[in-house]
Amino acid sequence: MKLDLAIRNGTIITAAGRFKADVGIRDGRIVMLAEELSADDEIDAAGHLVMPGGIEAHCHIAQESATGLMTADDYRSGSISAAFGGNSSFIPFAAQHRHMSIAETLDLYHERGRASVLDYSFHLIVTNPDEQAVNHDLPEAFRQGITSLKVFMTYERMMITDSTFLDVLALAKAAGGLTMVHAENNAMIDWMSRKLVQSGHTAPRYHAISHPAVAEVEAINRAISLSKLVDAPLMIVHVSTREGAELVARAQAEGARVFAETCPQYLFLTRDDLNRPGLEGAKFMCSPPPRDQETQEILWRHLALGTFTVFSSDHAPYRYDDSGKLSNGPDATFKQIANGMPGLATRLPLLFSGVAAGRLTLEQFVALSSTNAARVFGMYPRKGEIAVGTDADIAIWDPHETREVRLADQHDGMDYTPYEGMRLTGWPVTVLSRGERIVEGGRCMAEEGRGRFVKRGPSDYFGRPGFTVPEMDPARNFGVEIGR
Amino acid sequence: MKLDLAIRNGTIITAAGRFKADVGIRDGRIVMLAEELSADDEIDAAGHLVMPGGIEAHCHIAQESATGLMTADDYRSGSISAAFGGNSSFIPFAAQHRHMSIAETLDLYHERGRASVLDYSFHLIVTNPDEQAVNHDLPEAFRQGITSLKVFMTYERMMITDSTFLDVLALAKAAGGLTMVHAENNAMIDWMSRKLVQSGHTAPRYHAISHPAVAEVEAINRAISLSKLVDAPLMIVHVSTREGAELVARAQAEGARVFAETCPQYLFLTRDDLNRPGLEGAKFMCSPPPRDQETQEILWRHLALGTFTVFSSDHAPYRYDDSGKLSNGPDATFKQIANGMPGLATRLPLLFSGVAAGRLTLEQFVALSSTNAARVFGMYPRKGEIAVGTDADIAIWDPHETREVRLADQHDGMDYTPYEGMRLTGWPVTVLSRGERIVEGGRCMAEEGRGRFVKRGPSDYFGRPGFTVPEMDPARNFGVEIGR
Amino acid sequence: MKLDLAIRNGTIITAAGRFKADVGIRDGRIVMLAEELSADDEIDAAGHLVMPGGIEAHCHIAQESATGLMTADDYRSGSISAAFGGNSSFIPFAAQHRHMSIAETLDLYHERGRASVLDYSFHLIVTNPDEQAVNHDLPEAFRQGITSLKVFMTYERMMITDSTFLDVLALAKAAGGLTMVHAENNAMIDWMSRKLVQSGHTAPRYHAISHPAVAEVEAINRAISLSKLVDAPLMIVHVSTREGAELVARAQAEGARVFAETCPQYLFLTRDDLNRPGLEGAKFMCSPPPRDQETQEILWRHLALGTFTVFSSDHAPYRYDDSGKLSNGPDATFKQIANGMPGLATRLPLLFSGVAAGRLTLEQFVALSSTNAARVFGMYPRKGEIAVGTDADIAIWDPHETREVRLADQHDGMDYTPYEGMRLTGWPVTVLSRGERIVEGGRCMAEEGRGRFVKRGPSDYFGRPGFTVPEMDPARNFGVEIGR
Amino acid sequence: MKLDLAIRNGTIITAAGRFKADVGIRDGRIVMLAEELSADDEIDAAGHLVMPGGIEAHCHIAQESATGLMTADDYRSGSISAAFGGNSSFIPFAAQHRHMSIAETLDLYHERGRASVLDYSFHLIVTNPDEQAVNHDLPEAFRQGITSLKVFMTYERMMITDSTFLDVLALAKAAGGLTMVHAENNAMIDWMSRKLVQSGHTAPRYHAISHPAVAEVEAINRAISLSKLVDAPLMIVHVSTREGAELVARAQAEGARVFAETCPQYLFLTRDDLNRPGLEGAKFMCSPPPRDQETQEILWRHLALGTFTVFSSDHAPYRYDDSGKLSNGPDATFKQIANGMPGLATRLPLLFSGVAAGRLTLEQFVALSSTNAARVFGMYPRKGEIAVGTDADIAIWDPHETREVRLADQHDGMDYTPYEGMRLTGWPVTVLSRGERIVEGGRCMAEEGRGRFVKRGPSDYFGRPGFTVPEMDPARNFGVEIGR
Repeated sequence: MKLDLAIRNGTIITAAGRFKADVGIRDGRIVMLAEELSADDEIDAAGHLVMPGGIEAHCHIAQESATGLMTADDYRSGSISAAFGGNSSFIPFAAQHRHMSIAETLDLYHERGRASVLDYSFHLIVTNPDEQAVNHDLPEAFRQGITSLKVFMTYERMMITDSTFLDVLALAKAAGGLTMVHAENNAMIDWMSRKLVQSGHTAPRYHAISHPAVAEVEAINRAISLSKLVDAPLMIVHVSTREGAELVARAQAEGARVFAETCPQYLFLTRDDLNRPGLEGAKFMCSPPPRDQETQEILWRHLALGTFTVFSSDHAPYRYDDSGKLSNGPDATFKQIANGMPGLATRLPLLFSGVAAGRLTLEQFVALSSTNAARVFGMYPRKGEIAVGTDADIAIWDPHETREVRLADQHDGMDYTPYEGMRLTGWPVTVLSRGERIVEGGRCMAEEGRGRFVKRGPSDYFGRPGFTVPEMDPARNFGVEIGR
Repeated sequence: MKLDLAIRNGTIITAAGRFKADVGIRDGRIVMLAEELSADDEIDAAGHLVMPGGIEAHCHIAQESATGLMTADDYRSGSISAAFGGNSSFIPFAAQHRHMSIAETLDLYHERGRASVLDYSFHLIVTNPDEQAVNHDLPEAFRQGITSLKVFMTYERMMITDSTFLDVLALAKAAGGLTMVHAENNAMIDWMSRKLVQSGHTAPRYHAISHPAVAEVEAINRAISLSKLVDAPLMIVHVSTREGAELVARAQAEGARVFAETCPQYLFLTRDDLNRPGLEGAKFMCSPPPRDQETQEILWRHLALGTFTVFSSDHAPYRYDDSGKLSNGPDATFKQIANGMPGLATRLPLLFSGVAAGRLTLEQFVALSSTNAARVFGMYPRKGEIAVGTDADIAIWDPHETREVRLADQHDGMDYTPYEGMRLTGWPVTVLSRGERIVEGGRCMAEEGRGRFVKRGPSDYFGRPGFTVPEMDPARNFGVEIGR
Repeated sequence: MKLDLAIRNGTIITAAGRFKADVGIRDGRIVMLAEELSADDEIDAAGHLVMPGGIEAHCHIAQESATGLMTADDYRSGSISAAFGGNSSFIPFAAQHRHMSIAETLDLYHERGRASVLDYSFHLIVTNPDEQAVNHDLPEAFRQGITSLKVFMTYERMMITDSTFLDVLALAKAAGGLTMVHAENNAMIDWMSRKLVQSGHTAPRYHAISHPAVAEVEAINRAISLSKLVDAPLMIVHVSTREGAELVARAQAEGARVFAETCPQYLFLTRDDLNRPGLEGAKFMCSPPPRDQETQEILWRHLALGTFTVFSSDHAPYRYDDSGKLSNGPDATFKQIANGMPGLATRLPLLFSGVAAGRLTLEQFVALSSTNAARVFGMYPRKGEIAVGTDADIAIWDPHETREVRLADQHDGMDYTPYEGMRLTGWPVTVLSRGERIVEGGRCMAEEGRGRFVKRGPSDYFGRPGFTVPEMDPARNFGVEIGR
Repeated sequence: MKLDLAIRNGTIITAAGRFKADVGIRDGRIVMLAEELSADDEIDAAGHLVMPGGIEAHCHIAQESATGLMTADDYRSGSISAAFGGNSSFIPFAAQHRHMSIAETLDLYHERGRASVLDYSFHLIVTNPDEQAVNHDLPEAFRQGITSLKVFMTYERMMITDSTFLDVLALAKAAGGLTMVHAENNAMIDWMSRKLVQSGHTAPRYHAISHPAVAEVEAINRAISLSKLVDAPLMIVHVSTREGAELVARAQAEGARVFAETCPQYLFLTRDDLNRPGLEGAKFMCSPPPRDQETQEILWRHLALGTFTVFSSDHAPYRYDDSGKLSNGPDATFKQIANGMPGLATRLPLLFSGVAAGRLTLEQFVALSSTNAARVFGMYPRKGEIAVGTDADIAIWDPHETREVRLADQHDGMDYTPYEGMRLTGWPVTVLSRGERIVEGGRCMAEEGRGRFVKRGPSDYFGRPGFTVPEMDPARNFGVEIGR
């Protein structure tokens, strides 16, 4: 069989193993793995690792905040930055605001998504699950392959009540989808914030104090409790606390379909980073906030233990200027500064540093960076796997290359990176999407708009005990369709 | 490239995924995975599952008990029975008795192993770790590829002290090996047994009462504590209790390199099975004993959770006649009846029933039946994986075939099976070892003695946090050598 | 010194010990304990136990429900029933409804309380903690000796938000008081109820299903979390679940000032009691509902362990007729039937049965029935103790008397008792309040209105680690004042 | 009634409460508590606390170590030192050495005890529970009122096997007694010690390293497991670790009759104290060793939680000279230095400092210093209580007096105190034993030999759920007899 492309001499790493083989690609798919392959077009991966391209499952792209602030990245810049970071697909949010219908929301984001160089899908943020949404729009969204929702337990303009949360969980479960949740207790944060601001404690570092661990832990417990009531799958995003991770682990041990995510900021930053002179700490503000070093250690361990199913950036790009964090001027209190930080390009090198440090195996790196997201978000095995028949979405890594993180090397729309100056070993050298080189030699080779919308299937809940595994039907392309 | 054999149209299942591909085999190895392959010799696996051949990691073959009773299986019958059960390699014990040196023990078992139709290695049971053993014989055994030891905390003629246990743990750790342990508190069992026998409670069912859960749980806690002291890896074999599994899970969560195994008897039998008329209950006597239905449920859950790394038979074949369990006559007390039951051929069909029941995924089945054992016992990826470059040790399963377990269909040396009459769905149809069909169409096609000794490498501890992963060096056959 | 009354030959039981002594009383106080005392008026307590009179700390007396239904007991009948049950004081609720101010509420209940034969105080139910309440009325209530508040996390017309809950906790803490909470997740109950009623499941037994354990457990966790945020003391009332009790125990082990209460219905009834023909199950409806036998065992254990500080009746008397539970007619759904059941007179004999059963010691009985309530609600040692200087509030029990619980023997306003027909051993024979016999020989000897309002002091938090114990100042009557 | 002595104007503190009353004493007993009493002999306790005299339940007096080293205190000096420390009775050990019978052991210690100024009993250390011991001597010891045994899990010359431990537990249980245990894993300590000494790490501070926390925790778990098997009560002495305390708390929560003790050295010293120049650290060597500050905090919390039933000194007086710790010369390794430190006189002032710090209530102080020991060791209520009918064993404390701990003020046979220089507030001013002043005005007023042997009754297990409470029979002096 004639191949379009052969990746030669590399070591393939999957979520469960490692072996030496050449990879043969035709029509955008992997069609052959063998000891020796040749093609007109070959990539020599000797000394390199051949891994599934990363899947970025938590990022805010071309999204207005509830107060109307637009992110500094659109689908073009965001997808290019992600590609440089070793990703070959991503799933930003399509965010309903309360005055918009679900249908309008999806139309808007389908339009925005057209600029992407990576394959993409959306998680649908639901803030107003009214009759129309529940009876019509959400089922329709699931039919269109948008099989994950997100709700908020905090932020006045976004949050839903416990009662509505139950409705969303039940609805998503019925459709075979997954509900994601930002879990923090709004009353606690609000109460703390008011006390702090009233007493003149307004600097960025009070942001961390106003989001105490107990606010996250309480909300995680409540979210898990609600999901237990209706026996519905749930993913807790950006877990930042020891007790939060332990609640997730305990629920999993009891057989609940509870999943969780953590992010680089909780492994590499601490609340002390918010305590820089002036408003500089604002660069490190996100919700929940970074905690402390002991927590970092615990979260690394839970990554290795499998408590966390995915590791995401929560890329929420608000520049450190008056288009972003400083839009309310130099006297802004911490309540008036946009939360979030960039991370599309640094997520995977940061995680890879855990492999070098002996915290994670290469297989765990692949699972956390790509395969697990593909499964739990209904794209497996077309995405997130290196095997015969799957999309040739591949990242080739040099495990020995050392680089310093520098703003100058970033390709997103931001004016800072919180990891400035860190020296990391292990970087992607070539990234393929459906067999096409999109990043190579430090250059982006992809045309704007080449990305396709991925029509996702139901979640694969990893065979949590007591629940059946969705059948894999290769005839249906494994249940996953690539759009347009 | 010309192939010796192609497996066509099957669905490949690995420990981490599933995909449709044909498998190309040459010189006993998998050399190619592709969408379509052909060869002179082909197996049509349409509708079937193509999985790594099982690795049976806990069985007693051609082994005398401490009281001199010989098992009913030698390496020929044992390996054939295992092959029928979907296995393509196994690791019986080389059992030191106190009057033998380690070197004599290994010589003896190397001789016995020659009859095997499957590739094999040995775990070395150590009962007398004297100076000669510690300074010379054990290091030599490791050099010869016998990288796992086993010790007993019970059985007067086998057990070692806590002090000696520490020495063994430290020694195995230094050599990159793994210490396995039969964990039951000997004093508790002895005290209970004396009270029971003294008061005339001698029937087989009192065996279960004399081995209370607390005896296992205490010993597991002690074994884990000892391993923590010297920071050495440890595997608790045949865990039969809820609290035991929880201790293991907790140790893993803390980052300890503690592994565990459970067995079919703890998932499918209960202590009530020992309560049959006359001595019939003796058929179900093993140590630790089966517990109850609630425990079965919990152990299934821990299989899915990953608490258990391997699932083994603990095949200990003593016939229900005067060559075995009845050798002390019809008036024997439960203390005078040999412990153990057969399980080589039924282990995997029993485990597979958990897939059908939604308790496990196919991937978990592969991990528990084969891949994990290969990793933790230093044979990965030559054994336990379906990938380019690995040994073509493959079991092809029909997931829909239903059979009843019957003694008449067994190929071991036993005169009963504890699972008689159970109807199970999912059975192996063809088993390959290094590319050779060894079982097909219900017949064994392997010649006695075709099996090879596997010189194992160091354990791969699954990247438990805080510990480095042994480098995979393909040039050294991944560190694994196949002998003779 | 001349005594008014001597109790002779009895065995005195306190929360920490037991000893034989005569009790000498003058002017309503205990003035002497000695080996032999005499007085003109003597009670021979030979063979009997002399214990502090019970303090009933959770009962609804002369209280309208949020829907306007008045309880079947006023302060006269309620206090008489309580006296027959071995109590010499009680603390019903003064319930704010949302249209009432705190001040109006207290005026109303002070008026109602005048009829009492027992000394009494109020817990103040807060449903509308507005500016006036927070800044003026609540501080004033604390000054008047009403040092405990109660809030609801469920019941649409009563519940407060998490945000308001934080304000109440902080306020009570500042005043040295205690916040009590009815902890159930309103959204869960509402969601379940809607589904059940919509699908025609309206019988009383669905009440139990609509109040699942997870609803209580979630709310207890949230309440504890909120109290941790502001480091304020908290009492969870009527805990009915294993996990709920465990959350309390864990918080106590961490040093939090978290207290809890359970009630007879959770030790002696189960959800099966709600499953009687027709609406008969309505007699056993309360919130949270009774659970199951296993939970009963666990709650008994937590009583002995000290997890529960008080044991109360939650007497909420709605008759089984159209003045009460059947006020919405024979076709009422479970949502339309008033919750609650009587228990003033049976609480202590039911608890005492745990002494006979070896579940509790006599000392624990005294602590749970009286002394602990006195401490935590700021009445110790004037109430709840037998010692020189304390009020002569004494219950003399015959530990060997056996009676059957019968409606005919009740003195409350109810037409049923949920414990009808139970045979219990251990009953009060004489009850004293401030040295006066109020019950003796099966007769009430107290005049309506003889009871006094008890102006309570700050809570004594039992020296939970990290917190100081309020100083006992005997010159100030130990900080407790008896009114009028 | 004419009194011999009246204690006037004090505040009485018991294990459960506090009240102002005068105490009337006649014939060595408390016969009256009243508001005002007078006698020819009066003590004015105004501003002072009147508490049960301390009971020291763990001390080594006139006891040879297994290697023959005699303690620096005999019953005269030991009891005097204890009296100065606020104690009015104590229970040293009668230590069987393997060559002695139980009967010989008791005879020896009865002889030694004659010198005591305090009432005393013995815990019997059992090292050789042979047939004679089990069938005759131990039952006889129980009949003689020695109702507590102690066994060791470490120290080659003292330790018993798990098997013998089970026999002792069962025997003590049958007799209504209590088994105490020194719980450390001998193999771990031995293994660590050998490695340390072999590698030249011989200074005192390596003592702490050779006794790791896991050695204690493992042994505590094993001891609890053994006690569960035979359902026998158990007390773990000198618990020094967080996990150890948690195991005890968990066992208690499950309803087991497991008790525990901790000591001042674990609350006030750390392993750093062993790291003084030269052999100076030897002064702080004891087994188990002091740990760290975090552990101190946790142990304080468990004192308040009730996990610990008693708080003892473990007074083991080996002087810092060649009669004691330095008997093996200046080059001794840590294995050659006697373990132990003094503490009879400082135990209670150190504990009282926890009251001042808000860690404990006065009631908890009384429970931990006296009442609980009286109950669990079968002397209640004759000892450990202030109530009518009990022995007038009373310590009157000035809660405001501040003193510095100085060797010059000690009355024991030692040449150092580990608490030298600590300033503590709260000291005993007068100590009574059976109504006699034994310490007052800083002087000992007791004659050598005035102490009496206390014939103890069965343990009162505090009504742990599931177990009955021994009947109190005042006619039998509550089951306690005072000898000679």
